[in-house]
Amino acid sequence: MSKRLVVVGGVAAGMSAVSKARRLDPDMEIVVYEKGAYVSYGACGLPYYVQGIIPDHNQLIARTPEQFAKRNIQVFMHHEVTGIDPQGRRVQVRNLQSDDVFETHFDKLMLSTGGYALRPPIPGLDAPAGNLFVVRTVEDGVAMRRFIEQEGPERVVIVGAGYIGVEMAEALSEPHLQGREGIRDLTMVTLFPPLVPTFDADMSEHVSAELARHEIALHVKGVKAFERRDGRVVAVQVEDGSFPVDMVVLAMGARPNTALAQAAGIALGPTGAVAVDDHQRTNVEGIYAGGDVAEALHLVTGEPAYIPLGTTANKQGRVAGENIAGGDATFRGIVGTTVVKVFDLDAARTGLTEAEASERGYDVRSTTIKALSAAHYMPSSGPLYVKLVYEAGGRLLGAQMVGTGAAKRIDVVAAALYDGWTVDDLRGLDLSYAPPYAPVWDALLVAANVAQK
Amino acid sequence: MSKRLVVVGGVAAGMSAVSKARRLDPDMEIVVYEKGAYVSYGACGLPYYVQGIIPDHNQLIARTPEQFAKRNIQVFMHHEVTGIDPQGRRVQVRNLQSDDVFETHFDKLMLSTGGYALRPPIPGLDAPAGNLFVVRTVEDGVAMRRFIEQEGPERVVIVGAGYIGVEMAEALSEPHLQGREGIRDLTMVTLFPPLVPTFDADMSEHVSAELARHEIALHVKGVKAFERRDGRVVAVQVEDGSFPVDMVVLAMGARPNTALAQAAGIALGPTGAVAVDDHQRTNVEGIYAGGDVAEALHLVTGEPAYIPLGTTANKQGRVAGENIAGGDATFRGIVGTTVVKVFDLDAARTGLTEAEASERGYDVRSTTIKALSAAHYMPSSGPLYVKLVYEAGGRLLGAQMVGTGAAKRIDVVAAALYDGWTVDDLRGLDLSYAPPYAPVWDALLVAANVAQK
Repeated sequence: MSKRLVVVGGVAAGMSAVSKARRLDPDMEIVVYEKGAYVSYGACGLPYYVQGIIPDHNQLIARTPEQFAKRNIQVFMHHEVTGIDPQGRRVQVRNLQSDDVFETHFDKLMLSTGGYALRPPIPGLDAPAGNLFVVRTVEDGVAMRRFIEQEGPERVVIVGAGYIGVEMAEALSEPHLQGREGIRDLTMVTLFPPLVPTFDADMSEHVSAELARHEIALHVKGVKAFERRDGRVVAVQVEDGSFPVDMVVLAMGARPNTALAQAAGIALGPTGAVAVDDHQRTNVEGIYAGGDVAEALHLVTGEPAYIPLGTTANKQGRVAGENIAGGDATFRGIVGTTVVKVFDLDAARTGLTEAEASERGYDVRSTTIKALSAAHYMPSSGPLYVKLVYEAGGRLLGAQMVGTGAAKRIDVVAAALYDGWTVDDLRGLDLSYAPPYAPVWDALLVAANVAQK
Repeated sequence: MSKRLVVVGGVAAGMSAVSKARRLDPDMEIVVYEKGAYVSYGACGLPYYVQGIIPDHNQLIARTPEQFAKRNIQVFMHHEVTGIDPQGRRVQVRNLQSDDVFETHFDKLMLSTGGYALRPPIPGLDAPAGNLFVVRTVEDGVAMRRFIEQEGPERVVIVGAGYIGVEMAEALSEPHLQGREGIRDLTMVTLFPPLVPTFDADMSEHVSAELARHEIALHVKGVKAFERRDGRVVAVQVEDGSFPVDMVVLAMGARPNTALAQAAGIALGPTGAVAVDDHQRTNVEGIYAGGDVAEALHLVTGEPAYIPLGTTANKQGRVAGENIAGGDATFRGIVGTTVVKVFDLDAARTGLTEAEASERGYDVRSTTIKALSAAHYMPSSGPLYVKLVYEAGGRLLGAQMVGTGAAKRIDVVAAALYDGWTVDDLRGLDLSYAPPYAPVWDALLVAANVAQK
């Protein structure tokens, strides 16, 4: 007899799980509760929607509730799950439009409540403001773009210079919106240099230079307060001054939405996200988790990590869905691969940074080289910095690449980390070569050769 | 006491060998004989020089004889080694400008005579023609571009549709030469569909479509004769007709320059190229070989292969140079990775094609998918076809990718082939993701997931 699956949160992990579960079990009853107005969307595309490269926010949506309905998957929008009763196998749900509250039964539960934009206890950040935006949901993106189009803000501060911070810097600086110029008075206020600590400081410098080249002011300081007037932020105060603003983008990182899990006795791991095993099972029988609410096993350290990403969410959701449908799928783990576009640069990383490896007590070595992305005589060739991080014995711990053509080049190192390769293993690799794509010695091989010396 | 190294042929493998040998042994006497007018150049860039993307042929040259001289490496241009005496440790050399012949001593010899453009015994191909060009040396490229600029050929036939054939098709169709339009009457006459047999026929179809989209006529037929008049080819005759021409590009493949080796008793391998061990040693003590004259071990088949490429030449040269200088370097082998740009497509491959694997008796399976190079909502996203080739048990044998963004994506599979991965090993890989670079499921992961079903 088929079971009833309740999914809490319908973005990446949740909808991957239901898609897989439905393919494997045509009879299972599947119900999805999503507190927002959209399901199954690519949140990673939001900066490009705000930029205008993506004209319509509906383009971000992979599948609509109607499409899921055709596969006999019931999707309820504006429905927030407010409680889980693991023993009674019931969830409490609030219809956010009618304010009705009801309970419903589950046999299996998929916890995919995602993450939220971090809002530290800084004065002025305790209430919403009409010109302060985060970049998490479609609604967030729509609100921000509408504000830009209607109000034409001239002075903007982005707080935070992680992936979303730098993507938003590009989006606001070079909009593809008709009749709208880029914001000239654009400042990033950030506790760490751009992309640090995800990248090492020496690699971050190339990102800082790229931002400076596009006339974006970088102010590496903590925010003291958001000065408010009439429901808006009018200035961002830092230790050594104050930036008057028309608009603020908050990009201080993400945290897992674990409140519901904690209240239900679902265990969190050392990172503060929901702990899962390699089958995406939580500590509660029949309750699975995945995506930005959950941890993932980091294969380099052998420990759980919290690196919320759409790719991991989709993989974890798929594995959870297969197991929910009675299968036996495993998620092997992650190696911390990420990439972000910063104007004309790619900044990519995998494994551990040198700083991360040092903190963890590895006897760490690193090699950094500057190479070219293509043959030196090709006009499309651009600079590419490669940093390899490895143990004294040669075992690879990670890599960072910043420059032209970093994005997919990092993947070779990502793959190598799955099998515990050494720097020496990289050296002779038969990597693709033609003048438009690589020099005869690919940047990665150059780095491995230098490291070996 | 340091030795005397004589290098026969100074392009990729030869000059990599001398550079490495000189770094390791400052005292060794090093003499290079090159029959052409250039050393140390990137022959792979020749199509882009003819196209005009590279304005000056000198840009193709990595280092000049003067630069080598500063490192105490004597380079003699226009000097052809005409005989090797392995017992007497001497070579016979002809100065092609003065016609003087002399002999000189060696302790170690690096045989890097490269390859030559195949000229089958077709009537009319037995003598040079003023309007028939190959694409091997800088001189070849300079002659071809001068001919195009001076004579403005209107009807051109390219014979052969391998890597150089398709690169030349793009170069001639979309020249970057001032005041010069692309050749409108451009025909490729080819025994096999484009890039076949290096690619499977089903993947070749996308290349054919791309050529057709750029109005290049494809005529899949063998050439019967080159009709000549006054020292020029005036028509290319095929079984079912004849193409009048102003210019012909011969791109029928390359063969190793083994005449000198054979005369000296240096053993060839099963491919017809010079046999070398993992130290780049030939069967003759003290004589090393590498580059387009030599074989390389193919790690998927475990057998020698002849896949002449600049990357392999540089690696083999470097290993030979280290060993010549008294080191103990090994060249692990190749996996047959190549990539070529065909207008807006990349065509990349690694390992074995399905046809190659079948011929060799593998119990072969394949999976082909169509995906996108970037997130579906990004305007930069383009179609990308991925074909995985594997054994019935799942062991990867190779991959082909044709479309947008194939070039560096193939490298993950290339790396995987070094460690005998299965299709399943690819499935969960933590590959780089951001909307401008990949969909949330990278094309490679999609292919691996489909293959696994």
